[in-house]
Parts: sequence; structure tokens; C-alpha cells
Amino acid sequence: MKQLLLMSSSRKGNLGYLEHADEQLNTILSDKIKRVLFIPYAGVSFSFDDYEKMVRPVYERLGYELVSVHQFDNAAEAVASADALAVGGGNTFALLTRLYENKLVELVHERVADGMPYMGWSAGTNVACPTIRTTNDMPIVQPPSFSAFNLVPFQINPHFISGKPVGHNGESREERLGEFLVMNPKESVVAIPEGTALYVQGDQARIMGEFDGMVFRQDKVETLASGGEFPLSQING
Amino acid sequence: MKQLLLMSSSRKGNLGYLEHADEQLNTILSDKIKRVLFIPYAGVSFSFDDYEKMVRPVYERLGYELVSVHQFDNAAEAVASADALAVGGGNTFALLTRLYENKLVELVHERVADGMPYMGWSAGTNVACPTIRTTNDMPIVQPPSFSAFNLVPFQINPHFISGKPVGHNGESREERLGEFLVMNPKESVVAIPEGTALYVQGDQARIMGEFDGMVFRQDKVETLASGGEFPLSQING
Repeated sequence: MKQLLLMSSSRKGNLGYLEHADEQLNTILSDKIKRVLFIPYAGVSFSFDDYEKMVRPVYERLGYELVSVHQFDNAAEAVASADALAVGGGNTFALLTRLYENKLVELVHERVADGMPYMGWSAGTNVACPTIRTTNDMPIVQPPSFSAFNLVPFQINPHFISGKPVGHNGESREERLGEFLVMNPKESVVAIPEGTALYVQGDQARIMGEFDGMVFRQDKVETLASGGEFPLSQING
Repeated sequence: MKQLLLMSSSRKGNLGYLEHADEQLNTILSDKIKRVLFIPYAGVSFSFDDYEKMVRPVYERLGYELVSVHQFDNAAEAVASADALAVGGGNTFALLTRLYENKLVELVHERVADGMPYMGWSAGTNVACPTIRTTNDMPIVQPPSFSAFNLVPFQINPHFISGKPVGHNGESREERLGEFLVMNPKESVVAIPEGTALYVQGDQARIMGEFDGMVFRQDKVETLASGGEFPLSQING
């Protein structure tokens, strides 16, 4: 059965790295998992070693080992035998480019369909979608395609925040998602504020965290109340 | 001789559409130009007709006719015979996708190299660069390539603003450009705040407007003082 924890962000307010996320992570982690395989490819301005050092204590605190995929000679073999996958945030375009370089896109899709638990945050949530077309990140490198892991049948917008910065003429997040839906009128976008996650188990999902999620569709915007369970098919219904 | 006016934004503070830009536009416009051809392809949440109606009065006020390329049966023929080109803001990915669909990318590069004046703002400035890798926009549609008009030998970041929104854990603009330079260490990015433009005449350039520009390189950040002339080659030197 498919199991996904798709988190908006690594941080919430002034809390430390994934400090808000213990309850969310414990929902998907279980004693069937000994070691979590970490994908650090979204990290750009710091080393994969440093990224691994930052994330390992989060999982150790919860009782799990963690090792980064860059420690293995063959990334695909490491993914093929992983107990669970954690895909960290950073730049979504760097992440997807490196996933293609390491031939992991199809493989992760298949392993998650077979039941390997998947945890992602920020960029790691963007790549869980059919494509990366609702990332907030700068396209600093061109991936071979925008197509990603396709683990849920809709787009997600992490780090959702309403409105726009004062004194600046850029678009608000709502306007950006509205533009996405003009260009892609049959699609839907689940927007999750920082600290919030979408938890998926099989065909059912729920929003976890203090805040509600939202679904943006071409003709309407709806609230996804935190804690309420719904079928995945409801989002694109 | 190449002539470019690459504006950061259509708006500055609370001023109306291109209201701040008369002096900047007059620098590149001349009595050799009767009619400006407008490219509305970055517009997503409003019609090309409406976009043309918004921009036409700006040019009429300065004494020039303006017609949008979507009024012509063949966009390439319209560009081939244009006196000058104005490329409006909106979504950079929609703009570049439609430029490719209408087979305009190579053609605009050639016509500008031959001396046709080019005016762009926001997305219209992003596509003047070698690629769109320093746009701030959401990648709502996948263009065939990130490669763009390549009218200047460096990237530009429009709508430049320092720092990050309070209470949100996204990256600051400086951090985003820093990540670009980690992935592309030999490149440079000229960052221009709203209301500011980069004016290029042949091999020389200067920043126009109230604020200074900046050049981001891997190892340092420098100010480009408003009004001071410099050779284009200095940016990547």
C-alpha cells in the first residue's frame, strides 16, 4: 500500500530543522524500517555530507538510522534495496536534474507503488507530484523534463503563503497558482502552509499539522481541514 | 548597432503601468520608429487583446503606434518587418513556450543583432538573456528549452529585492542567485530593482533609474551605479 508523507517545509516558524515534524514522521515510520535512505540532491550551497549530518539526528532521535544515497557507488541499487526514502528540500530543479542523472525517477515511482514509504519536504514534496510545475524555486538548471515521481495525481504547492510582500509588484502565490490553472485548466493544486503535511495511505489522504490545506481548481478554492480524511480521487473530482 | 532597453518591472511603487518609464523608453525610441510590435505572450490571466489595450496608451503618449503580434496571421512575418519590439511581462515560462510555438526565438535574436530596437520588462527582460534560469516565475508550463533570445552575454534578475519576507522560511533572492552561481560558477547575474532598467547600445551599457543595479558573481557582489557607463564585457570579465 502506498505511504507518503509530503511536508511543506523543513522548518516551521523559529523551530529547528524538522523539529515540528516528529508526530508527522512517526505516522509513516514503523518498526519494519531499520534504515532510511536520504536523497540530498536538492542541496546546492552546502555539501551532501553536511546535508546528511543535518538530517541524520532528526531520524536518530526517533530511533531510525539514516544514510545518504551519495555514500553508495550506485544510487539506483541503493534505492532498489531501501527500507524507506527521505527526499530533502533545497532547489527543485537541481534535485530533479540529479534524479535523472542517477536514473532514479522511474525506479522511485515503482518502489513507492510497491509500498516503500516516501517522506519528502519542500523540493522533496514537489518531485512527488506528476511534474515540478508548482515549485516556488528558481530554475537554476534545466532538467531533461519537468516530469517527476508522479506519486499523487495532482500538483502540490509547498511553503504556501497568502498575499504578497509589501512594496513589491511580484505576483501573490494565489495569482501564481491561478496562472497555473489558466494554462492547465483540468488540474488541481493542493497548497500546504509551512509546518503542514499531506499524509497519504493507499487511496486516502489527510492534512497533518496546525494549519489547514487548500485545493486550488480553475473555478474554485476549497479548504482541506487539518485532520479530516478524504479520498485522493476527491482532489481531481 | 544593438539597442536594448531591459526593464525590471512594468510598475514602480504605486505608479501606473510603465508610468515610471517615459525617460527610459524615450532613450531607445526615435523617429526612425513608426510602429512598435508588441509581444503579449507572457500574459496568462487576461486576454492578448486586453494586454494590447493596456500597453498601447503608454506608447501613444510618447508618439508611437503599437500593435500586438497576435493581430497578425503570421507572427514570424510580423517580427521580420517590425520597426521595434516590445516584450511585456507576465509568466516567463508561458512567454518562452509561445515564442517557440511561433518560431520567434532565432528570428528575434537575428533582428536585434541587425539593429532592431528591443524593449522588454520583467518576463520580457528574462527572455533577452541566454536562458530563463534567473526568472522569479513559477514554471507553470514546460518550454522546449530554457534557451532564450541571448541578446546579452549574462543573466538578468528582474524585480530584484533584498532579503526575505518576515515569518517565512523560503530563500532570500540573494540566496537564490547564490544557488544559481553554485550550479553555474562561470556565469554572472545582473540584478535590477523595480523601476530600474539596463540600457544597451552596441557593446556599452548603463543602469537607468533611481536605484543602482548589482552584479552577482560566484566570488563577489558589486554595485552597478545608476548612470555609469560600462562595457558589456565587464560583466563577465
